[in-house]
Amino acid sequence: MTDIADAVSADAAQALAEAVGREMLAVDAASSGLGMRIVAIGPGFATLSMDVRDDMLNGFRICHGGYLTTLADSAFAFACNSRNALTVASSIGVDFVAPARAGDTLIAEAREVSLKGRTGVYDVTVRNAAGDTVAVLRGRSYRLQDRKVIAR
Amino acid sequence: MTDIADAVSADAAQALAEAVGREMLAVDAASSGLGMRIVAIGPGFATLSMDVRDDMLNGFRICHGGYLTTLADSAFAFACNSRNALTVASSIGVDFVAPARAGDTLIAEAREVSLKGRTGVYDVTVRNAAGDTVAVLRGRSYRLQDRKVIAR
Amino acid sequence: MTDIADAVSADAAQALAEAVGREMLAVDAASSGLGMRIVAIGPGFATLSMDVRDDMLNGFRICHGGYLTTLADSAFAFACNSRNALTVASSIGVDFVAPARAGDTLIAEAREVSLKGRTGVYDVTVRNAAGDTVAVLRGRSYRLQDRKVIAR
Amino acid sequence: MTDIADAVSADAAQALAEAVGREMLAVDAASSGLGMRIVAIGPGFATLSMDVRDDMLNGFRICHGGYLTTLADSAFAFACNSRNALTVASSIGVDFVAPARAGDTLIAEAREVSLKGRTGVYDVTVRNAAGDTVAVLRGRSYRLQDRKVIAR
Repeated sequence: MTDIADAVSADAAQALAEAVGREMLAVDAASSGLGMRIVAIGPGFATLSMDVRDDMLNGFRICHGGYLTTLADSAFAFACNSRNALTVASSIGVDFVAPARAGDTLIAEAREVSLKGRTGVYDVTVRNAAGDTVAVLRGRSYRLQDRKVIAR
Repeated sequence: MTDIADAVSADAAQALAEAVGREMLAVDAASSGLGMRIVAIGPGFATLSMDVRDDMLNGFRICHGGYLTTLADSAFAFACNSRNALTVASSIGVDFVAPARAGDTLIAEAREVSLKGRTGVYDVTVRNAAGDTVAVLRGRSYRLQDRKVIAR
Repeated sequence: MTDIADAVSADAAQALAEAVGREMLAVDAASSGLGMRIVAIGPGFATLSMDVRDDMLNGFRICHGGYLTTLADSAFAFACNSRNALTVASSIGVDFVAPARAGDTLIAEAREVSLKGRTGVYDVTVRNAAGDTVAVLRGRSYRLQDRKVIAR
Repeated sequence: MTDIADAVSADAAQALAEAVGREMLAVDAASSGLGMRIVAIGPGFATLSMDVRDDMLNGFRICHGGYLTTLADSAFAFACNSRNALTVASSIGVDFVAPARAGDTLIAEAREVSLKGRTGVYDVTVRNAAGDTVAVLRGRSYRLQDRKVIAR
């Protein structure tokens, strides 16, 4: 007879993830300064969006790989902190597979591949509005001991 | 008896790298908008610096990994284009080993590990003013066919 | 009215991938020497299996990460050569997420994430017989110019 | 007046690293089965060698990337366990930059890039006897809590 308990628990986990995401974005000057929005968030996943601005372009008039990485890395950070256990990125790998241009709206979807003890692996796919993959990131996370992201 | 010819050729390669760097930075809105400066550049290497601004901080009040990556990725791009053959980053890996804080001046030093045919490998070390390593990036480059960075 | 033509073409691509896989394994002393078998192969994907032998164990009595990588790297190689255009691995990243033990049958499933011009990105997941993920590999491929894997 | 104490301590650390290396290799069936030898080891570094055998070749008659990785990964493991704190590889990245052939003696040199708390970053360069770089590996390590490699 755990169905109701499970549903309550799932609802609570979802509500917690949403609260963590909201409060993280509010205090994250880098992500909010780049115009990132939370499209979806839940336990172990997060989807963020960002519009490519002129000041994000490199000399080839395409979005600088660093800004693509910043978006993907934020999605990764939101996903791995979504259970309210303070977690940092220890390393990332990024493959750039197609250019993004000024005005493009990019969507970065992060999901958990593995979470064992204090280390996790997350995959992020960055797509443009047409659904083409622009970049993929794989990140490794490290949970700090006994620290929450938000107080509750 | 190629000593003078070699010296002339080395001087020309150095002058070319400096010209490429100068013109790349001039048209790279992302890098110049973040206040990056060229500290040194030559055939196969580049060193850039950047000050950590308040708008680069994440919610933990440390420099967002995306901005560390942007600096390191620019140093990588300047190094792999330094011989004036148009080259793009195909993938990067970044390890974050220490936090950077507002006001820190970061120095990113990129050097060539390997260059074979159209693909190369570059290592970048990002340090703070105290000389502590903040992040290391390893990047893979791909040279486009028969295209120059600057006309000359 | 391209349905029949498409089906013929898909059948031909599938038959070609199977022939490439068969002939690759026959001449690949490393993969066949480790007892790898082809479970499935087609255009852009390949699944290989391998049993963990005693001589693959490290001092912790678990499968050496190098052997996990060898299996995953072979699956990657079979996937990226499956269209009969000679292709090499230029770099890989591997995350080790759970140990494998002597006697475990490992299954490595490789699929194409991106293929643009001469460079591709492939993801490989290595699982044990219980379906637990043991390791994930992301590989970058580079197609050599105008060379086939097998003559036909 | 800590000079003598420091020298004794450095000698002890060196002797410990050598003992750890010797005992690790003795119980590591994978590494010893591939003929690996310890060329040098000390606190935070290790150099291993291996001869490329016929059974390590892939269908292109060059050393399978998995075996190059196995050698590099062993050097990484020996380096990160050299202080006798039990440590595992959590992830690796490998760039393949030149082929190795049957009969080549390969030398893998691992050194510590960073060690903070329980996580470390190590760089390994694999060269052939002519000194050409064959592959580079960057590995991330994770120290297990309060466990030694060898009893002493």
